[in-house]
Amino acid sequence: YKRELILKNALELFSEKGFQKTTIDDIGGSLGVTKPFIYTYFDSKYSILEQLYDRAYRDLHTGILEILNAEEGGPAERLRRVVRLYVEENIERQKLTAIMLEEERNLAPKKRAEVRRKHREFDGKLTSLIEEGVAAGEFKVADPKLASLAISGMVRWMHRWYSPEGRLAPAELAARLSDLALNIVGCPAAEAMSADLTAASKRRSNGRVVGRAPS
Amino acid sequence: YKRELILKNALELFSEKGFQKTTIDDIGGSLGVTKPFIYTYFDSKYSILEQLYDRAYRDLHTGILEILNAEEGGPAERLRRVVRLYVEENIERQKLTAIMLEEERNLAPKKRAEVRRKHREFDGKLTSLIEEGVAAGEFKVADPKLASLAISGMVRWMHRWYSPEGRLAPAELAARLSDLALNIVGCPAAEAMSADLTAASKRRSNGRVVGRAPS
Repeated sequence: YKRELILKNALELFSEKGFQKTTIDDIGGSLGVTKPFIYTYFDSKYSILEQLYDRAYRDLHTGILEILNAEEGGPAERLRRVVRLYVEENIERQKLTAIMLEEERNLAPKKRAEVRRKHREFDGKLTSLIEEGVAAGEFKVADPKLASLAISGMVRWMHRWYSPEGRLAPAELAARLSDLALNIVGCPAAEAMSADLTAASKRRSNGRVVGRAPS
Repeated sequence: YKRELILKNALELFSEKGFQKTTIDDIGGSLGVTKPFIYTYFDSKYSILEQLYDRAYRDLHTGILEILNAEEGGPAERLRRVVRLYVEENIERQKLTAIMLEEERNLAPKKRAEVRRKHREFDGKLTSLIEEGVAAGEFKVADPKLASLAISGMVRWMHRWYSPEGRLAPAELAARLSDLALNIVGCPAAEAMSADLTAASKRRSNGRVVGRAPS
């Protein structure tokens, strides 16, 4: 429980002041406890950052990898689901995601390597999904690997422009970005849907795969 | 000339060690000069970072805004040119771009506001270009503003995965990412071209607009 409080306050401070400028004293001060107290739970500021990372990845990637690995559902449906979940998770954990992305260089080399490996794992599985879609004739894109990097970049960059006060609610933003991800992979469904987004979102909310004209 | 050398060495050090961990002493040391010598050219480490930023923006945005503001060329052609230039500039100035993106929070509030304003200016003009394409019937995308953020995110995120040792040469990477940008805005040309990338790149290199089937 105290560990949780420390993590929570550290997250706020890292997010406000930046990781480098935040001291263990600041974290202790925000909780009204001493520095040695913090050290009974964490070895260093870096280990706090690493634990924040671990949480972010556990939550963020478990669900996504489940969808990517799933047997059921066509490529288009799974791509849509992955992007929506990724966007929604990014929004829900906005501060943590921003720190995770911006403070990566402050992690210990071993940890950084692990984080980069997880990113690559994600990008690799997304590439496989796109390749599957191309093979099935659903997607039309010349370079699935690059399309995968384009999609993850589009989503990961969100931490720079997303604002809770923005014009779109999280679910709507997630739906629209997943349409754009389908555009990226040249999936005709995306075109049909952007032409008639309202009808499409009704169909989607029924949980069915959106029909596509054969190409 | 000395100012140039200081900027050059500072860029290397910021890129290697991160901005926070680099001291004026480090920069002086790398040039074999003293700290006071550096201070005759720059007020502080922050002013070095700000000047690096100024250069990055001057070079990066001048060309891009020229294309966005251009009267000639259809929306698809201009979008393609903007994305190619943006990608190529990102590659050419990889270190500076990465620092520019990652150290933004270390700029003085006034400077940060200026940088954000320039980002917004860019995104706004890109949105206008997409709206123009939608109005002309060339682009089919429900939310031009979001499409603009998707495109700039796709390109800006490059600093996290691009490697000069990667499989694609800069010009090829720029061409493929501009195809994906056209996909994002639902431009049928993109589909046709990804189906026959080689032919398309030959046509492009002739400087002509790529033909599109009327939709």
